[in-house]
Amino acid sequence: MADAISFTASCPVPITQRDFVTLAHGGGGRMMHALLERTILPAFGSQPLESRHDGAVMDAGKGRLAFTTDSYVVHPLFFPGGDIGTLAVTGTVNDLAMCGARPLCLSAGFILEEGLPIATLERVVASMARTAQGAHVNIVTGDTKVVDKGKGDGLFVNTAGIGMVEHDLVIAPTSVRPGDAILLSGDVGRHGVAIMAVREGLQFETTIETDCAPLADPVLALLAERIPVHCLRDLTRGGLATSLIEIAESSRLHIDIVERDIAVEENVCGACEILGLDPLYLANEGRFVAFVPAEQAEQALRIMRHYPVSATAARIGTVSESPAALVTLQSRIGTKRILDMHSGEQLPRIC
Amino acid sequence: MADAISFTASCPVPITQRDFVTLAHGGGGRMMHALLERTILPAFGSQPLESRHDGAVMDAGKGRLAFTTDSYVVHPLFFPGGDIGTLAVTGTVNDLAMCGARPLCLSAGFILEEGLPIATLERVVASMARTAQGAHVNIVTGDTKVVDKGKGDGLFVNTAGIGMVEHDLVIAPTSVRPGDAILLSGDVGRHGVAIMAVREGLQFETTIETDCAPLADPVLALLAERIPVHCLRDLTRGGLATSLIEIAESSRLHIDIVERDIAVEENVCGACEILGLDPLYLANEGRFVAFVPAEQAEQALRIMRHYPVSATAARIGTVSESPAALVTLQSRIGTKRILDMHSGEQLPRIC
Repeated sequence: MADAISFTASCPVPITQRDFVTLAHGGGGRMMHALLERTILPAFGSQPLESRHDGAVMDAGKGRLAFTTDSYVVHPLFFPGGDIGTLAVTGTVNDLAMCGARPLCLSAGFILEEGLPIATLERVVASMARTAQGAHVNIVTGDTKVVDKGKGDGLFVNTAGIGMVEHDLVIAPTSVRPGDAILLSGDVGRHGVAIMAVREGLQFETTIETDCAPLADPVLALLAERIPVHCLRDLTRGGLATSLIEIAESSRLHIDIVERDIAVEENVCGACEILGLDPLYLANEGRFVAFVPAEQAEQALRIMRHYPVSATAARIGTVSESPAALVTLQSRIGTKRILDMHSGEQLPRIC
Repeated sequence: MADAISFTASCPVPITQRDFVTLAHGGGGRMMHALLERTILPAFGSQPLESRHDGAVMDAGKGRLAFTTDSYVVHPLFFPGGDIGTLAVTGTVNDLAMCGARPLCLSAGFILEEGLPIATLERVVASMARTAQGAHVNIVTGDTKVVDKGKGDGLFVNTAGIGMVEHDLVIAPTSVRPGDAILLSGDVGRHGVAIMAVREGLQFETTIETDCAPLADPVLALLAERIPVHCLRDLTRGGLATSLIEIAESSRLHIDIVERDIAVEENVCGACEILGLDPLYLANEGRFVAFVPAEQAEQALRIMRHYPVSATAARIGTVSESPAALVTLQSRIGTKRILDMHSGEQLPRIC
């Protein structure tokens, strides 16, 4: 599933929470993982789904295809630096890039609420077209449905994407090895704060804009330069912390990261303090981590820094054998703490 | 777009209708076509979208891929003979089949409303798995989002599908030729009436069940037997009449159909009379038309009748040169009338 998943311990919840969908089920945390593991994956049980990766890679005669999908329900539809349309294209292109695939084409499915101003749809569609052009993909098929007023929320968008895999690497948590360097493509937390600031009507000295951006260029450059990339993950719902916890659990390895090496913009830090949010768990829409052999880390960083979207890429940590399936953070003051997956929702409807 | 489209004359509407999404925009009629033509297609403008077909077919190295998507917002979620899950798999598999493609794999995207019983999701997911198995496809990637209570309607599903095109035919309205026979795979109107009967709480002597079923088997058999199929179309939103009008307009040819050759079950006829509906415009989810050269029509019908889903296939009409871009119906009493596309919605949220 495009919600990357790795369900571990059970999380006892009262009956009402277990039997009904709650907003927490969409939050990228334990509850969403449990919903996927208990309800959706067992029913489908196809081999590509079992790989728990952001997209499906399939043999298609001579080549391998990557295939992924995401629905977008972000609220509000428009926010500083982007809108649901930029997200819908970028998010799916990035899921393909995280498979190490060259994005080839997208589908677009719209669920419109009766009463939506056509001008709103036009703005979103224009954003999608512009973003697709910038990401070198075509939107090649689509669908439109309308639901009664009060049965939707203006506009939901689904995109699915196909990409071509032009290398022989297995880019997945299972390919991560002890000693791997963990590279982060830029600062974290901006997308989450940008959305939250609009929702809460918060004003900062400078507007915090989403980091939403396509990631295929630096990823394809790493592959073209023959960096033996072990794993890639874009840091969407659940943020950096959740992504790393998922990879640590899937690989049964230990991930050690260093807080002072993780860039967070000063105004994002300030907003997080006001809002009581942790930037490590905030959604990003233009950030990724790459796991590469330590000896290729410097070369990989040089390649990534060549692209504006990953100009400030940095090594933030290292993989080791134990304690297995855990992520440890070295704080700025030198203490160590284990990062745990949140149960539900830090910020609902962030994408 | 998976909403097959062919916008012709302008339809003057008051300003309020033009600027806001109405349920009619989702109805498969003039208004949906106008929305696509005016708002969505011009913005994307990719070549496969320009072909106005149910899916996108792309060169992928050695083979050709078909790619399609649909969102499903049917209300209610469960109805006689199926549910939103059976629809979500069948509809997308059928769009691939209408490209003449062998369905390969599907994605599944869920938009869940806070408060949805998990048991409901489980039923739907089980239906999807069962239907996918019956249609010989895997669901290989997916996504789940949750929206606040009151901002959705229980459950929306999006599926996208990839298929392989294993022949050299161009199956499209532009391939239709004067003299072509028009073959219909079975009786029409059951899906629309099944949904409407549940919504209105109507009881008939026998329950009218949806015709929802995968169509790839008879289509692939036609291709395997080297029938030079010119065009295929499944008869979803807008029904038989709208599909034929779209094909007549795209091909700039004349379509002549004979009412007495179009099967409609007696209880469907009865329900249509009570509800004031025209079965020719009712949605079907397991019916298609095939345009083939007249000399191959009998062989094609024999092949189609070999499969339960198209066991009662029949020739219902013929293509001629003029009057161009029109569909004429010969009624049971011998009169002729031109079939026109409805402006909006006969039945909202039928799929």
